[in-house]
Amino acid sequence: MRALTVQPGTHGTARVDELPDPVAGDSELLVEGLALGVCGTDREIVAGDYGWSPPGRDRLILGHESLGRVRHAPAGSDFTDGDLVVGVVRRPDPVPCGACAHGEFDMCRNGRYTERGIKEVDGYAAELWTVELDYAVKLDERLVDVGMLMEPTTVVAKAWEQIDRIGARSWYEPRTVLVTGAGPIGLLAALLGTQRGLDVHVLDRVTDGPKADAVAALGATYHHEPVAAVAGKLQPDVVIEATGAGSVVFDAIANTGTYGITCLTGVSTPGRTISIDAGADNRQIVLENDVVVGSVNANLRHYRAAADALAHADLDWLRRLITRRVPLEHFDEALTARPDDIKVVLTLTGEAR
Amino acid sequence: MRALTVQPGTHGTARVDELPDPVAGDSELLVEGLALGVCGTDREIVAGDYGWSPPGRDRLILGHESLGRVRHAPAGSDFTDGDLVVGVVRRPDPVPCGACAHGEFDMCRNGRYTERGIKEVDGYAAELWTVELDYAVKLDERLVDVGMLMEPTTVVAKAWEQIDRIGARSWYEPRTVLVTGAGPIGLLAALLGTQRGLDVHVLDRVTDGPKADAVAALGATYHHEPVAAVAGKLQPDVVIEATGAGSVVFDAIANTGTYGITCLTGVSTPGRTISIDAGADNRQIVLENDVVVGSVNANLRHYRAAADALAHADLDWLRRLITRRVPLEHFDEALTARPDDIKVVLTLTGEAR
Repeated sequence: MRALTVQPGTHGTARVDELPDPVAGDSELLVEGLALGVCGTDREIVAGDYGWSPPGRDRLILGHESLGRVRHAPAGSDFTDGDLVVGVVRRPDPVPCGACAHGEFDMCRNGRYTERGIKEVDGYAAELWTVELDYAVKLDERLVDVGMLMEPTTVVAKAWEQIDRIGARSWYEPRTVLVTGAGPIGLLAALLGTQRGLDVHVLDRVTDGPKADAVAALGATYHHEPVAAVAGKLQPDVVIEATGAGSVVFDAIANTGTYGITCLTGVSTPGRTISIDAGADNRQIVLENDVVVGSVNANLRHYRAAADALAHADLDWLRRLITRRVPLEHFDEALTARPDDIKVVLTLTGEAR
Repeated sequence: MRALTVQPGTHGTARVDELPDPVAGDSELLVEGLALGVCGTDREIVAGDYGWSPPGRDRLILGHESLGRVRHAPAGSDFTDGDLVVGVVRRPDPVPCGACAHGEFDMCRNGRYTERGIKEVDGYAAELWTVELDYAVKLDERLVDVGMLMEPTTVVAKAWEQIDRIGARSWYEPRTVLVTGAGPIGLLAALLGTQRGLDVHVLDRVTDGPKADAVAALGATYHHEPVAAVAGKLQPDVVIEATGAGSVVFDAIANTGTYGITCLTGVSTPGRTISIDAGADNRQIVLENDVVVGSVNANLRHYRAAADALAHADLDWLRRLITRRVPLEHFDEALTARPDDIKVVLTLTGEAR
């Protein structure tokens, strides 16, 4: 089988390798890879800035935004040959820490978790892959050409769960949400906001194009003015920050409404220094009882929530998010971001092309 | 009766006035003021930087950290003449907003709440005051000389409740807490930390003196090194920030452990600009699933929690926190901070001197 591999820590080592077909264990599925979503983390790994190969090996099969079709399911399992599935990204640490021991491995305390396609375990950018039954999630067949959006949807499902649980510490009936950044995370966060019946606003730098169109198609409001102006006017109950840009982050935090919750989801690069009025920011967070919460990764509960959100989403809207589909052999094109990209997908078989 | 009054918005207008005795309504207590704690908010009001007088009046009776003895309780109420009581500070807004309508007036959304001694309602710096039965809280008689610590204790009781409820969004068994600032809020936050069985660390700038002694007497660990060094080593599960100093705030946030919760309680002054690595701070908050929460004021649930905390505290330790007791007529001395002050108290009768 063919797979997209990389040597973590070294720039520009991505290539398609011909590897032996994987063999599924007794409690594993053998899955035919259909497609793979590409994200900023993949690009960081290809650039040599992130990622870890499996112990004793130099190269890692890339890919964590999976979509596949079960080729062989163990008898008596909840899966059937032909099922559409995605594989969960993270696995609990082996100690395990208290969070991992309780299934909350997205909150792992000791950092010894592993992640398919990112940290010490091969990913899903392969024509065949295996996955433990406990870490495979079935998708509705209608999602056959968009199901690789599942993993980013789990990220926003977790973000929304964090917001809901933190909001519930006192009286909480949110109305207005501002999403900063109209990439896949921002747009999927907006989707879940509309599914909650909220007044959803999405902000990005571009003035028009597929991002603005996707926001409008969702029935949400698109903004391209500076975040301080937009948030200052909206006074949102919730901000979901998906740019990772320092100035956007702090302008958003400083302009929520009272009891505002800002959920940070963008993994930014260190080394970008900005000046802030720390006295004013601290004072406002205190006097408004505001919260800033970081959210990364997802556990099985969030995969279930994401599957539910996708099942209730408009298929044509989901298809809007996939702005390019690139065959595996042209992975270089997929790994190079273009201005109008929302989600770029590597196709592994003809079925998802 | 005598009362300490001030003209909000004008610097240096504090004076002792002779005013008519207040008259209690049918559902109010008439209370003899015993003592009053003085805090930074009082000093801001006296400096003309904060505070609002009652509608139609120029002057406000100062004081929100109350302690008094019931002179007259309505028949059939839960109070008896002679009971030791404190008055709640905040009252719900008149609209009311959803939070105030649900008793969560500390989370008031529209800012139209009022506050005794701060915002539009006379305070407790008077030889006699009245308070609605629903906003009076009974204290154990043994707290007669320290009960004015109740109000700052409600602030930390709320802070701890916020931390507990936010922590409970996933698996959470905190062990280590770092408190920054060893003023009354910091020390009372440390007290509640030890009551929870946590490993408590308190950081302040001074190298020794009553603050360091109070921390040691609590069985907690005192630090006076920079917060980045202390927190970086401890990797605390919880930080309770009680300095309001921008650099301390951001160094604390950046050095929590994974799934760290930083609770900001210090009301700082705007206009203090610092440079931060926004990319690094954002990245760490996201990848560690960290939370920053602001907490101000307290509702009746927090008053009950605070009364319980004080009832279980060592009386001699609470007395350590009151480093000066100043009679009402010498209010100027009480309003001038001294380096070794922890809590300064105005005494209104001989009973609390």
